[in-house]
Amino acid sequence: MANTKAYAATSPTSGLAPYSFNRRELRPDDVRIEIDYCGVCHTDIHFVENDWGMSEYPVVPGHEIIGRVTAVGPEVTSHKVGDLVGVGCMVDSCRTCTACESGLEQYCAEGMTGTYNGVDRHDGSITFGGYSTQVVVSDRFVVRVPEKLDPAAAAPILCAGITTYSPLRHFGVGKGHKVGVIGMGGLGHMGVKFAKALGAEVTIFTRSESKVGEAKKQGADHVVISTDDDQMEAVADTFDFMLDTVPVQHDINPYLNCLKFDGTHILVGLLEPIEPTIQAAQLVGKRRALAGSLIGGMPETQEVLDFCAEHGISCDIEVLDIRNINEAYERMKKGDVKYRFVIDTKTLRDS
Amino acid sequence: MANTKAYAATSPTSGLAPYSFNRRELRPDDVRIEIDYCGVCHTDIHFVENDWGMSEYPVVPGHEIIGRVTAVGPEVTSHKVGDLVGVGCMVDSCRTCTACESGLEQYCAEGMTGTYNGVDRHDGSITFGGYSTQVVVSDRFVVRVPEKLDPAAAAPILCAGITTYSPLRHFGVGKGHKVGVIGMGGLGHMGVKFAKALGAEVTIFTRSESKVGEAKKQGADHVVISTDDDQMEAVADTFDFMLDTVPVQHDINPYLNCLKFDGTHILVGLLEPIEPTIQAAQLVGKRRALAGSLIGGMPETQEVLDFCAEHGISCDIEVLDIRNINEAYERMKKGDVKYRFVIDTKTLRDS
Repeated sequence: MANTKAYAATSPTSGLAPYSFNRRELRPDDVRIEIDYCGVCHTDIHFVENDWGMSEYPVVPGHEIIGRVTAVGPEVTSHKVGDLVGVGCMVDSCRTCTACESGLEQYCAEGMTGTYNGVDRHDGSITFGGYSTQVVVSDRFVVRVPEKLDPAAAAPILCAGITTYSPLRHFGVGKGHKVGVIGMGGLGHMGVKFAKALGAEVTIFTRSESKVGEAKKQGADHVVISTDDDQMEAVADTFDFMLDTVPVQHDINPYLNCLKFDGTHILVGLLEPIEPTIQAAQLVGKRRALAGSLIGGMPETQEVLDFCAEHGISCDIEVLDIRNINEAYERMKKGDVKYRFVIDTKTLRDS
Repeated sequence: MANTKAYAATSPTSGLAPYSFNRRELRPDDVRIEIDYCGVCHTDIHFVENDWGMSEYPVVPGHEIIGRVTAVGPEVTSHKVGDLVGVGCMVDSCRTCTACESGLEQYCAEGMTGTYNGVDRHDGSITFGGYSTQVVVSDRFVVRVPEKLDPAAAAPILCAGITTYSPLRHFGVGKGHKVGVIGMGGLGHMGVKFAKALGAEVTIFTRSESKVGEAKKQGADHVVISTDDDQMEAVADTFDFMLDTVPVQHDINPYLNCLKFDGTHILVGLLEPIEPTIQAAQLVGKRRALAGSLIGGMPETQEVLDFCAEHGISCDIEVLDIRNINEAYERMKKGDVKYRFVIDTKTLRDS
């Protein structure tokens, strides 16, 4: 691994049998899942390399999990053995706060339990993710995967997909709206597909002229080169929404300037301090808003899978042998993936 | 004047007759108003002292104007001679863009024409404001003042009032909401009155223990000392809205942390770059929004005056002799006014 402290089921050379993880005895509401595919999210790299200083090693990343139910606890009624199911970024929450009661478990007042590097609310153990052969998860946090979907390409819907779908739905994106999508990675390309499917006119903002063709291929109606001041000025005051999927610091002011009055800039990637600083007049002068959005709640995660099945949407993926995970991380750091790596966990069983 | 370049009708010692301003021939849609009162806004000081580098001297400030109609152009049907009327921050706009057609002239695509230091759209002259004995304004930008209102105390409703009322209405503040009001000046104290009248539970955030009594007197249900970390932590994740009236740079992060998930922090005072920088995770992690709002459109400016008449709301004021305007500016800079100075323009006629 890139970081020598990180090991686990991700690495066949770690000396640790992957089967020692994710095998707790079933609780009454638990679902045991044999994992078929697991998407690789940039967050995985952050945790493996402890970029946020909060990694608990060993880290077993992976929160875009697709698999089959192999066993259920006695209280489980929503899933049965053999079902194709998914697990996303959360495996638990307090379940009683206003957010949880509204099906917005990601905003749980006590904090959601992450699929990996979280703390189990029952036994205090650290949770392990989907770079594994199986996982045991409480039924509330398991979604049904429509059989119409390709299971490998469906995996990233559970993070990259829901992360872009949820704000588009929450903020009411639809016909007649102009939506800008900033960033053309795993999240961005899903954002384009969803915004189009919801009826919006979609513009991709990219820094590079070389990506124009690819942006059009993704379904964008228009492409704006964000480094070209003339192009940016030409679209000033024209967008209802900007979906900003860029996960690192960048200047938001030029994009705020592209919003109509009452327009909303939605951050889904950036979690760091916003630098350079925002011009308050950009917000006040046009009643614009800068909002954030985090993944999506469980009902909406089910909804996005059903929406994808209905609209024939899936993620563009490159299926990965677990033995190549470190190389994949290096390629992801360079933006060299179209658009998501998905681990075929058969390769984990074989290793 | 504080700035020797600034003179005009504001200063009886300027050597310039005040009557030389605001006396254009009536255009067909014009209303001539004899001014009785004009509120003193902090913006006036910024223009007089050219803080924003955009002042066109001579500056005649004043955009909280109350007076009586003395003449109308042939096309005016909404106002007649003798009516008590008001003029706020705008005197014109393009009238054809989406914003103008929606009655949101303050967000005019071409930019609104300010009541002073604006450029007249017909003859290119610089507009002059309400520190004057009269003013001529197009009927669309003249509002009716209910006779129930005290005309002096109504003046600041045209800027301080509408600036706080508009976002509270736009964002749907009402019963069951918890609203925090940051800053207890001209804007803040009006924000408290409106939020209360709309049915919200209101907390004033102030830096000083000494203002607690005054905050309660203004009708706040609770007061939080914003410099007390324990008090701030105790109200974390509890507010639906924060109405931020502070007109200078300040740390917004501690206030964002006070918002519930889906809460909105509304800037109405700050127009400078937002420093220190915002933590994006504060927005993303709870789907919070940071929004701005600028005064209000003409229909809403009429609405707020009617709302004030209905709910018995007016601004707390100190009536001012124009001869004391410079002393008033100095007191305003120290925050030494409860809560708005209003010029009695009789003193201008007498001077």
